[in-house]
Amino acid sequence: VRALRWDGTRLHVASDVPDPVAGADEVLARVHLAGICRTDLEICRGYLRFRGIPGHEWVGEVVSAGDPALRGARVVGEINFGCGACDRCRGGLARHCPTRRVQGIGGADGAFAELLAVPAAVLHRVPDGLSDRVAVFAEPVAAAFEILEQLGDVSDRRALVLGDGKLGLLVAQVLVAAGARVTLAGRHAEKLALAERLGLRAVRPEPGADLVVDATGSSGGLRDALALVRPRGTIVLKTTVAEEHRLDLAAAVVNEVTIVGSRCGPFEPALAALAGGSVQVGPLLESVYDLADGVEAFAHAGRPGALKVLLAPAG
Amino acid sequence: VRALRWDGTRLHVASDVPDPVAGADEVLARVHLAGICRTDLEICRGYLRFRGIPGHEWVGEVVSAGDPALRGARVVGEINFGCGACDRCRGGLARHCPTRRVQGIGGADGAFAELLAVPAAVLHRVPDGLSDRVAVFAEPVAAAFEILEQLGDVSDRRALVLGDGKLGLLVAQVLVAAGARVTLAGRHAEKLALAERLGLRAVRPEPGADLVVDATGSSGGLRDALALVRPRGTIVLKTTVAEEHRLDLAAAVVNEVTIVGSRCGPFEPALAALAGGSVQVGPLLESVYDLADGVEAFAHAGRPGALKVLLAPAG
Repeated sequence: VRALRWDGTRLHVASDVPDPVAGADEVLARVHLAGICRTDLEICRGYLRFRGIPGHEWVGEVVSAGDPALRGARVVGEINFGCGACDRCRGGLARHCPTRRVQGIGGADGAFAELLAVPAAVLHRVPDGLSDRVAVFAEPVAAAFEILEQLGDVSDRRALVLGDGKLGLLVAQVLVAAGARVTLAGRHAEKLALAERLGLRAVRPEPGADLVVDATGSSGGLRDALALVRPRGTIVLKTTVAEEHRLDLAAAVVNEVTIVGSRCGPFEPALAALAGGSVQVGPLLESVYDLADGVEAFAHAGRPGALKVLLAPAG
Repeated sequence: VRALRWDGTRLHVASDVPDPVAGADEVLARVHLAGICRTDLEICRGYLRFRGIPGHEWVGEVVSAGDPALRGARVVGEINFGCGACDRCRGGLARHCPTRRVQGIGGADGAFAELLAVPAAVLHRVPDGLSDRVAVFAEPVAAAFEILEQLGDVSDRRALVLGDGKLGLLVAQVLVAAGARVTLAGRHAEKLALAERLGLRAVRPEPGADLVVDATGSSGGLRDALALVRPRGTIVLKTTVAEEHRLDLAAAVVNEVTIVGSRCGPFEPALAALAGGSVQVGPLLESVYDLADGVEAFAHAGRPGALKVLLAPAG
């Protein structure tokens, strides 16, 4: 099959990749659309030393499965493939399984390919009314919902989202839907205008927020967040970068700030929010490329201010 | 009066310091004993650019007060002097009052002096059975209790305390008394032996702790804590240092770790624990110096592995 591969030094389209083989409890899925995420760009800068086919945001169709009910189903998939047997997997936290494989990030090939092998356990059916171009956002929207899973009730809290990129715009919408009083801060006039169209208040940030979400994707985000959160407030850290942070954490101690690392989240509320319209992703779609133009698509996704770039492996 | 002063470049004993003047709602106290804390040592390295009389751990006797019931009382005092009028002060969080003065750290002279002016509102009476040499530990023990105030129930949690210094040994005892399964990790054989005598398990730390308290006083402590905490676990950050941290926070995001900055705490449970014996401070006392030998006392407190050094302003 055709796939986009990162070999540690070079990203390239290969048309001679062997068909993926579905293991026990796995299905084969044909990828309809796959989104390029900042993590994919970081991988091509050396993050986690991943080699192989990246891609972990996708929507597709099951073409072969042990369970006949799954065949032909339109699905999205969680990205952490747990062992299924450890305490964490049995406790519903496969995304923290110590021996997990992470699709397109570590130990498992990803979705920038025509065909994908994926455990049946991670699949979620896409509601009929949801188009592929909306459903492909399920994974990043789930990552935004993880904040609610970790913090609980955020209603009426003064929330500040740092970063007007894709994740920031999704996080802000999820927090608004949860009843928080949300301000979005970013650097790009067009994206802040887009935020306003999405009903978000986009202004110069003021100190004193109850909750600050660092979705900047930059190692400077946490420093800004520490300056903007109120004493005893909470910072949610969504940024993973392939570089060290240099920061003075005395302010976090003196102000007794809580910093919460936050990664992947629950798919069901994400799909419900996409189906119900409380999270809108149409305005976040920048461009769709054929998989053959994957290298160009990555370059596009890496431009400052770029929104979501999708790959269509079926062309 | 006589006092130990830090003038920004030099620490020295001055015998001609004007008597402190008690403001409205303040009392004058004669200092019996005052402890040298790591923060005091950091101040003499430039931390917070404080100038004046340091010292914020003390026990003494009220010699003049508007309220006659206070005169002659043996007291300890909280170190944050709030405005008394703002939302935080009225909500019981004077230690986060935005215009607070902090005794011996910012905006108010401290306890390394014969006489001290201090708001009546911050005082706590010392129970009769508690000696000065025990009561002088109320402030750091309160800082240890702050962890319980922030985290709630820690019973049965696998807790790892990094740092076998004074604060680490107090934090470990407070966590043991709260029912946590505590391990203490440090670098000093004598202090680890002391920890064993205090009933603490002091061993080589293993990864997977539910809770890690960084009481190392070093910018490397958080890095170690991130390597030792379990996914979705909690790190309590007690270290304030006059330097930047350099660390890779991707692990905090990937493992969804919560980092909680923690500073000053509640005095009442601290005094109760000292009176009840669940926190033992006798073994932590290293030496008592006359205030006239304050510079030498600071040098002693700054030696690697030094335990608590006290100043006795009355000689």
